[in-house]
Amino acid sequence: MKKINGGVTAAMGFEATATAAEIKYKGRNDMALVYSTVPAKVAGVFTKNVVKAAPVKWDIDIVKNEEFAQAVVLNSGIANACTSKIGEEINQEMAKAVSENLQIPLRSVLTASTGVIGMQIPVERAKKGIAAMAKNLDSSVEAGHNAACAIMTTDTVSKECAVQFTIDDKVVTIGGMSKGSGMIHPDMATMLCVITTDIAISKDLLQEAVKNDVQDSFNMISVDRDTSTNDSMIVLANGKAENKEITTKDANYDSFCKALAIVTHTLAKMMASDGEGATKLFEAKVIHAKTKNDAIVLSKSVITSNLVKTAVYGSDANWGRIICALGYAGVEFDPDIVDLYIESNGTRIKLFENGIATDYSEEEATKVLSAEEVTAIADMKLGTESATAWGCDLTYDYVKINGDYRS
Amino acid sequence: MKKINGGVTAAMGFEATATAAEIKYKGRNDMALVYSTVPAKVAGVFTKNVVKAAPVKWDIDIVKNEEFAQAVVLNSGIANACTSKIGEEINQEMAKAVSENLQIPLRSVLTASTGVIGMQIPVERAKKGIAAMAKNLDSSVEAGHNAACAIMTTDTVSKECAVQFTIDDKVVTIGGMSKGSGMIHPDMATMLCVITTDIAISKDLLQEAVKNDVQDSFNMISVDRDTSTNDSMIVLANGKAENKEITTKDANYDSFCKALAIVTHTLAKMMASDGEGATKLFEAKVIHAKTKNDAIVLSKSVITSNLVKTAVYGSDANWGRIICALGYAGVEFDPDIVDLYIESNGTRIKLFENGIATDYSEEEATKVLSAEEVTAIADMKLGTESATAWGCDLTYDYVKINGDYRS
Repeated sequence: MKKINGGVTAAMGFEATATAAEIKYKGRNDMALVYSTVPAKVAGVFTKNVVKAAPVKWDIDIVKNEEFAQAVVLNSGIANACTSKIGEEINQEMAKAVSENLQIPLRSVLTASTGVIGMQIPVERAKKGIAAMAKNLDSSVEAGHNAACAIMTTDTVSKECAVQFTIDDKVVTIGGMSKGSGMIHPDMATMLCVITTDIAISKDLLQEAVKNDVQDSFNMISVDRDTSTNDSMIVLANGKAENKEITTKDANYDSFCKALAIVTHTLAKMMASDGEGATKLFEAKVIHAKTKNDAIVLSKSVITSNLVKTAVYGSDANWGRIICALGYAGVEFDPDIVDLYIESNGTRIKLFENGIATDYSEEEATKVLSAEEVTAIADMKLGTESATAWGCDLTYDYVKINGDYRS
Repeated sequence: MKKINGGVTAAMGFEATATAAEIKYKGRNDMALVYSTVPAKVAGVFTKNVVKAAPVKWDIDIVKNEEFAQAVVLNSGIANACTSKIGEEINQEMAKAVSENLQIPLRSVLTASTGVIGMQIPVERAKKGIAAMAKNLDSSVEAGHNAACAIMTTDTVSKECAVQFTIDDKVVTIGGMSKGSGMIHPDMATMLCVITTDIAISKDLLQEAVKNDVQDSFNMISVDRDTSTNDSMIVLANGKAENKEITTKDANYDSFCKALAIVTHTLAKMMASDGEGATKLFEAKVIHAKTKNDAIVLSKSVITSNLVKTAVYGSDANWGRIICALGYAGVEFDPDIVDLYIESNGTRIKLFENGIATDYSEEEATKVLSAEEVTAIADMKLGTESATAWGCDLTYDYVKINGDYRS
């Protein structure tokens, strides 16, 4: 199992492209198209927000009812959320344009949008963009990269990852792209992620693998505790690797899940560290919790606390805020036996032991917290379960970006 | 029922004072003492955080088991939280010093601390401060004000309020003080609030009135979604108004509850608008919700969203973020029938109607959002229940204050 260069075009039989359609932004690519040269098994998980964007509603229906899909059209700039029936019609027109240009069934086309809520997508421009993209599909690494860049909004870097492994001597590839970086607190999926793989697998097992995977990957990151209206993780598996189709939870299925986890964890951590205004990736590990759910809830409570996030920004070892965030998470534990550590670049410091501060050096603690990737570890000493969540610091730039995002 | 000048010394038989004990801060008052000249019925509500500060543990025991109390000693600078047994001993020594200096039973003394978590209170300095304060108690408005100022941490203004009304021709007064302004997301009570009243009321009814009141007052505010380890609301009722003791839920009980609500809502709103770094009070009203709990959860979701808070800071009518925050609150509703308004200084604008944007003027919306007190109103059109929550904007100064609070 090894990471390779590339993203959504890494797996065999996948092509991508991007274009500048002027959906809202000027002078940059803002639409992307991902295409499988053959019908691919389709799986996906989507936002649990009651307010679902038009493309999310469309995709949920397709993932539920169709075995195969072949294309995903994505745009940045406008989210097509809170746009009522008109937004749904525009979304369908976009899917139809892809279907006509690529000569594939309408219900083989998935859609995904990200950007401002409430505005309508200028449909003629979108259709022009789709027509241009359909002629320009390409399986190069660069084409995948262009697609990953086109879906960025306030992201500062594109997020791509690809992994290869073998099943019965067949090389299998999984590649993916995703985008952050605000309204990121995924609940079942993340804001626009497309994973492509050439593995042969049944649709049911693909969906199950994806559903399980997000619990430990995208659902464990948060930038701002705001669960988006558009969160979508779409997975296409086209079978081009020519392995014997996976239809049971055998060793091959496990290999696929492991490889998928590498791709999704990598993308998830990239999203957290590129959170709006972020200067640091902040990881919270909760170990020896009573239950898995306790560990999840506790670790997410730490990474989502504004007070913890600002302290991380200031490299201030204000550990009381971490203990406080554990305390209000809604999980019972005994504060008098908890230990707390911080760690970066291989240096670990114990700040708190059995309910009271240790005699740690503030200077050393500040040094540990000044790294680009910082971990806090809470040892609950109550059981055997653990969980890891990823977030980022809360900075002046977060306020700047969001104080006037629309202008 | 009318508001009067003053705070914790407004009611008959209550005295207060403050002193500079150098608990942590230099050159300012950092301890306060509130005293009833006669034993007073005691009630209180405290943080639900699993991690409870030493004074909170002490007070919970007293409120549960004692009928009367007579003094509250408070300090700022150090929270006496996460301080283990040593912190509990220091807290008890402080209570003992009050008991000895004022010659009242030890278990008539309540304690409250606010400030940095994890440090120990320098007990000798605290005791010296208590001795000085015991000689300096005073029933003037100024003495109450000094106490309110001494408990401030990152607060920029002191929070006091007093209300008078009559029961059977007896004038009854309720006064109170509280402090914010970080780690404010009270769950059952708020970070240090002392209410004094001269009403005669049974302990059970006093506790019930307080417990009900916080649901609509302090529990409806949030600065940062961080529920503190020290939240304490303490109420002393000493009977000096000489009304016939309230022992049933009659009209007099209702009058008391109404007056109490004026004091607590006033203090709660002052805390929200003085949230760390805040430039605006932000109010969210949810109307026509299916259940009261739905209305509460929805309105709190709006005021706690970082994306909404930064948009309010930028006076940006980015209403999609409000709809999004309603959507992920965990309450079922139909986005396609929701209406959304913003309002300030008597001007109301409808931004969103039946699931789609109205043709509102961005310029006018920005003007409405530029006021010091801004309200968002979401009409769910599903029932008859409503709730109001109060928060504040998220600003550069919030990050500044919390990036390095301890130094």
